[in-house]
Amino acid sequence: MDIIQNWPSERWREGSTHMSGFRVVTRSIRIQTQGDGDVVDVTRPVQERIGEVGLKRGTVTVFVQGSTAALTTVEYEPGLISDLRGLFERIAPSNIPYQHDQRWHDGNGHSHLRASLLGPSLTIPFAEGFMTLGTWQQIVVLDFDNRPRYRELVVQMMGE
Amino acid sequence: MDIIQNWPSERWREGSTHMSGFRVVTRSIRIQTQGDGDVVDVTRPVQERIGEVGLKRGTVTVFVQGSTAALTTVEYEPGLISDLRGLFERIAPSNIPYQHDQRWHDGNGHSHLRASLLGPSLTIPFAEGFMTLGTWQQIVVLDFDNRPRYRELVVQMMGE
Amino acid sequence: MDIIQNWPSERWREGSTHMSGFRVVTRSIRIQTQGDGDVVDVTRPVQERIGEVGLKRGTVTVFVQGSTAALTTVEYEPGLISDLRGLFERIAPSNIPYQHDQRWHDGNGHSHLRASLLGPSLTIPFAEGFMTLGTWQQIVVLDFDNRPRYRELVVQMMGE
Repeated sequence: MDIIQNWPSERWREGSTHMSGFRVVTRSIRIQTQGDGDVVDVTRPVQERIGEVGLKRGTVTVFVQGSTAALTTVEYEPGLISDLRGLFERIAPSNIPYQHDQRWHDGNGHSHLRASLLGPSLTIPFAEGFMTLGTWQQIVVLDFDNRPRYRELVVQMMGE
Repeated sequence: MDIIQNWPSERWREGSTHMSGFRVVTRSIRIQTQGDGDVVDVTRPVQERIGEVGLKRGTVTVFVQGSTAALTTVEYEPGLISDLRGLFERIAPSNIPYQHDQRWHDGNGHSHLRASLLGPSLTIPFAEGFMTLGTWQQIVVLDFDNRPRYRELVVQMMGE
Repeated sequence: MDIIQNWPSERWREGSTHMSGFRVVTRSIRIQTQGDGDVVDVTRPVQERIGEVGLKRGTVTVFVQGSTAALTTVEYEPGLISDLRGLFERIAPSNIPYQHDQRWHDGNGHSHLRASLLGPSLTIPFAEGFMTLGTWQQIVVLDFDNRPRYRELVVQMMGE
């Protein structure tokens, strides 16, 4: 391992000294999912929110409301979507007993565990108007609940 | 899956154009835990910090110091608390050998792994003075260490 | 569990009322990794970026481009580095079939799953010019890909 200290072509090397245009802007995205591990690519609507408000650089925090869905990034292709479902089925199987289900009879104890493990929030920098994602790196919502649901994502942008 | 582009009642649709009141405010929360997977709901003290400083919208980053505790959101009810402990016992069992324990004899190798997997940081948007959490979505600290501990949370608010 | 509401020595208790020096600054760090679960401590270069730009408090978001690497914090010592590799080998084994590999023949399906589970982003508060990390809590990049790679980290600082 080497840390390359003075990488000549340091992309995004930007810094502001004037605060003329700093803003906090809140938007939301509403999606409909199939539940049961449905994986929804929201890269484009998030990027569109940044473009619409005209911010050039800062951070965007995407947050999913509810405790049975979560966010991460992945190369969005059908093979990995299937593999992700297999991963979570191994980590938190849907067919073992959960205390949550014994108390509430929702049948979605595994959904809660998967969502809590992955987390409800993702913060991504943007520069020159675009998120600094890799080419094969998409923002996805995983809906682990055991039924189709509407989901609301908060898209909070801070920058200038 | 559908992305509903122009959802009419877009909550939190807010944007500022003036920066008169933008602030960075740092607070902390100190908690005492029982260790061994103790799950502490800190939603209320985090929300109180936002209220005390009078910020209306922005993001709050909650960060736990130390490498054997972590943060996420969960529906805070006793069944799921028990299920979460079961999840982490399956993922990183406490009764298998770890190199960390052979070197340092702390007996908390599993605690470190669980904390690193879940992560020390959570960023949550707030709007109209309140975090955009779901009704059954609480912010929790999981203390995986193998003994009771004091924990310090940094609560960093940025907004206006 | 107790939440200690009025902890007398509340460190980092700071708040600004003037926005004279608020800035968004983007930097990057480029590293070379060995792949295969290589764990790189980037705490020092991240802290150096904060020092170089002269920000005193705010948040830094570290983001890794690409979908086979991820970020977290850990006590950086050889035992835990080895234990982390063991953890991910148990969670997403490298020797089971993945749909991704059957479609793309990259042989790195497990790398993608591990990276998506851990996440590409980490947001850390800083106060008085330093990140609020614990003493034995380092920022690490885990490169799960199945070959050595160059990795670019975006370091987005917001504060004053």
